[in-house]
Amino acid sequence: MAPKQIALSELAASLGLEVEGDPDVVLSGVAALDGAGPGDLSFIRSARFLRELAASGASAVIALPGVDLGGRPALRSDDPSRDFYRAARLLVPPEPVVAGVDATAQVAPDAKIDPTASVGAHCALGRGAVVGARSVLHAGVVLYDGARVGVDCVLHARCVVAASSELGDRVVLQPGVVIGGAGFGFVGGEDGGLHKAYDLGRVVVEDDVEIGANTTIDRGTLGETRIGRGTKIYNLVQIGHNCRIGANVTIVAQVGLAGSVRVEDGAFLLGQAGIPGHLTIGAGALVGAQAGVTRDVAPNARVFGLPAREGRAWHKESAALARLPGLLKRVRALEKWVEAREADAGAPESRKAGTSETPDT
Amino acid sequence: MAPKQIALSELAASLGLEVEGDPDVVLSGVAALDGAGPGDLSFIRSARFLRELAASGASAVIALPGVDLGGRPALRSDDPSRDFYRAARLLVPPEPVVAGVDATAQVAPDAKIDPTASVGAHCALGRGAVVGARSVLHAGVVLYDGARVGVDCVLHARCVVAASSELGDRVVLQPGVVIGGAGFGFVGGEDGGLHKAYDLGRVVVEDDVEIGANTTIDRGTLGETRIGRGTKIYNLVQIGHNCRIGANVTIVAQVGLAGSVRVEDGAFLLGQAGIPGHLTIGAGALVGAQAGVTRDVAPNARVFGLPAREGRAWHKESAALARLPGLLKRVRALEKWVEAREADAGAPESRKAGTSETPDT
Amino acid sequence: MAPKQIALSELAASLGLEVEGDPDVVLSGVAALDGAGPGDLSFIRSARFLRELAASGASAVIALPGVDLGGRPALRSDDPSRDFYRAARLLVPPEPVVAGVDATAQVAPDAKIDPTASVGAHCALGRGAVVGARSVLHAGVVLYDGARVGVDCVLHARCVVAASSELGDRVVLQPGVVIGGAGFGFVGGEDGGLHKAYDLGRVVVEDDVEIGANTTIDRGTLGETRIGRGTKIYNLVQIGHNCRIGANVTIVAQVGLAGSVRVEDGAFLLGQAGIPGHLTIGAGALVGAQAGVTRDVAPNARVFGLPAREGRAWHKESAALARLPGLLKRVRALEKWVEAREADAGAPESRKAGTSETPDT
Repeated sequence: MAPKQIALSELAASLGLEVEGDPDVVLSGVAALDGAGPGDLSFIRSARFLRELAASGASAVIALPGVDLGGRPALRSDDPSRDFYRAARLLVPPEPVVAGVDATAQVAPDAKIDPTASVGAHCALGRGAVVGARSVLHAGVVLYDGARVGVDCVLHARCVVAASSELGDRVVLQPGVVIGGAGFGFVGGEDGGLHKAYDLGRVVVEDDVEIGANTTIDRGTLGETRIGRGTKIYNLVQIGHNCRIGANVTIVAQVGLAGSVRVEDGAFLLGQAGIPGHLTIGAGALVGAQAGVTRDVAPNARVFGLPAREGRAWHKESAALARLPGLLKRVRALEKWVEAREADAGAPESRKAGTSETPDT
Repeated sequence: MAPKQIALSELAASLGLEVEGDPDVVLSGVAALDGAGPGDLSFIRSARFLRELAASGASAVIALPGVDLGGRPALRSDDPSRDFYRAARLLVPPEPVVAGVDATAQVAPDAKIDPTASVGAHCALGRGAVVGARSVLHAGVVLYDGARVGVDCVLHARCVVAASSELGDRVVLQPGVVIGGAGFGFVGGEDGGLHKAYDLGRVVVEDDVEIGANTTIDRGTLGETRIGRGTKIYNLVQIGHNCRIGANVTIVAQVGLAGSVRVEDGAFLLGQAGIPGHLTIGAGALVGAQAGVTRDVAPNARVFGLPAREGRAWHKESAALARLPGLLKRVRALEKWVEAREADAGAPESRKAGTSETPDT
Repeated sequence: MAPKQIALSELAASLGLEVEGDPDVVLSGVAALDGAGPGDLSFIRSARFLRELAASGASAVIALPGVDLGGRPALRSDDPSRDFYRAARLLVPPEPVVAGVDATAQVAPDAKIDPTASVGAHCALGRGAVVGARSVLHAGVVLYDGARVGVDCVLHARCVVAASSELGDRVVLQPGVVIGGAGFGFVGGEDGGLHKAYDLGRVVVEDDVEIGANTTIDRGTLGETRIGRGTKIYNLVQIGHNCRIGANVTIVAQVGLAGSVRVEDGAFLLGQAGIPGHLTIGAGALVGAQAGVTRDVAPNARVFGLPAREGRAWHKESAALARLPGLLKRVRALEKWVEAREADAGAPESRKAGTSETPDT
């Protein structure tokens, strides 16, 4: 990405923001406050970062209105981080796509590659594979027979799309993603043993989905595994056969979904959570990091822990657990008190407390 | 997979099943009940699915004897899902293997590739590598020097077999599997620090093993890491150096095994479970999802939770934990009752209960 | 790796160790005691393994001084496993690097490859990529534009280094590692929705780092993700954007770090542990297997469990939890005793215990 030279006033015009201070400052890059030097645009989220700003070499910043910047040239914005990234796309624009198919790629005669698409070194495209306009396949991408890639997609190095699976438009796959591997379903064999099912289904990834490095999404057994529009999936995630993930779902790293899980729109699954087969995570629900779900999660519910339970209950139980060792001692003390009373009173055996279990403190 | 056209009577003869209804119905595909249309064969597991059957467009179904199918053409079977998948292999047969080595593959002069095997685009086969009859290497597979692949294997795109490792017959690797990476063993260095061990061992994968996408299996330090016959391993699983996995073991996604773990025949490790080094999981044992094992697991035992404990105990403890916050209040109430008695009685200090810990409710 | 033939006396001289027994024994390989045969050197960690030694076919062993080896030829060492691996490098030396660029590799015209480096089949090196002296890129490695590899590195098959990232010297990447994928940061979009941040940063991996198979390390958002000198990271680990990992840190398989985590020197993260964003793990701290960290961990602290807590507390709580079901019964018995006393005494309602919750045993 080769940076450009843009005057602050020009940037302001492009972004629809107001300039404050010298409009002729020339910018040529972007950086966080602590890494910024001359020519860099930075941003400041709130007045809490004013000390970092004072120490920063940034030539200009994007800031909320009303924050006193000590005269530093600035663009005012009601969402500085959003507009900073908008500016970054102008100052450090993505490399232009070089259309064409690398000479080392191997492409089946009937594969259809849009002339504006880019197919990198050592890619392999099977029979009937399709690559849409302006899509980029980095080095070593493999499209099996019948795989389809929409327009404006980016498939990073060494991704695999198997099982006649289909990516919508503007889909981004980080390196090493595997779409369309076989699921982990079994059927009885004629020999009485268990055999892997004979998978015939595929994966459909809808528009604007992004999938992290080395994540695996299995093909449907007979029908589809489907990832809904706008959903973001992070690295090393496992999604089993026949799962149906809704729109705008967020799935953090190393989450595992067994087969036929349904995740409804807008749900949020935090890192390393696990969902067994055939369960439903309701719309807008949040599954906590490392949570081990064991039953359906209601829409907008928040669950945590192993086994996963409602958030308030989990927090109360976790706090109570810290007091359990002390509680054991307190109960033993109560039992001793009762025993002493019984001994004093010579009370009948049947009323003695603390005898249902051998005290073990 | 190009579907065929097969009459129901012909299918029945091939599978050894009885026809019910029109034997001349022509089938050309398979689908689940809710996705089936004209020409599709489907199946019905039990009478509970009769409503789905009524709504289904399937031209014929496979069903248990005795279930009233309302006249729909059918094959009767005592295991409908098993026979459905048998039928699927006839109706939608796998692509025939195209024997030969792709022109873009790079093969060492002394590698031995059976003439009936298929080596895909951009594969790389090192010195002394061997590929058996009818085995298929999809695009981008890498066999390091001395790696051996048996007969009727399928290695999907971008798998790596390193460290002179060996695959038996009918082994299936999903895309991105890494066999034979270095383990995580350390030895003291001459400088007093820790250094990675110098790995010299390999991996042996026995017959009929299937391994899921992006799973990693490390080479032995000196000897072997071994995966027993018929074992099924799912996606993103980690198996450390010198592990010995028995026959017909099932290992679900994202399970992690440290070094020198022994898993005996028929054990079942559910998703995201973790096994530290040098432990043994007994034959037929079940390790629950996300369980964190900390000691050997006896044959046929079932363990759950972190730290993993016997199933019944874990369920009781999990249920009891939900009652712990209430229990804290109940014990406090008992303590108050005792304190009030003590105050009334002016009892000697030594008999007072509830004083071993400052009450903290 | 072709083994050599070396006399025990020669090996002793090379390693600076003393011979015991026949100095002319010729060695040609290494093995563990139970796998060793004629010509093999083995080692024995302590006198506890003397029975295995007696049954072993090893021609010579390395052993601690003072252990009675029954006359078997030996080298004496105060660290037998260390010196065994030193001997292994002499007896079974690593394959010499064959310098040069494979004809099937695709290299940008301005990439700089040291003439002593080795670039394997189907590697792809982007513009401005650099490979240092004696470094080895196995088949299918992809270096994006501007990626830099130091000297004496080994990048195993199918690794990807993206985002102008940089590897120091003597760095080892096992197969399938992804360095420099995009992070999982989001900013508000102009449409009000969340969009992935526009990543511009990179990854810096310092000298002597080793990274396991299929591990993913994301690029910084604006600045760097940094892996400190000597750190060892195992398979299928996830490290998010802007993380700063110190020197000599150990990260075991399937650990997940969200964005901006700081891990200080010498910390040890056990398998499947998870660290949320922006937390700090102090120098020398230990995070237990599967621990779910929820706050900063102090230097040298040891934390376990979900949510992670200090080690002694966690062990006490885990042990206490096993007694919780019994405790519920004991408290119920106490409550009954009190209720009986209350009934006898006709005490005023306000002093009755056990009524703050409906008894539920």
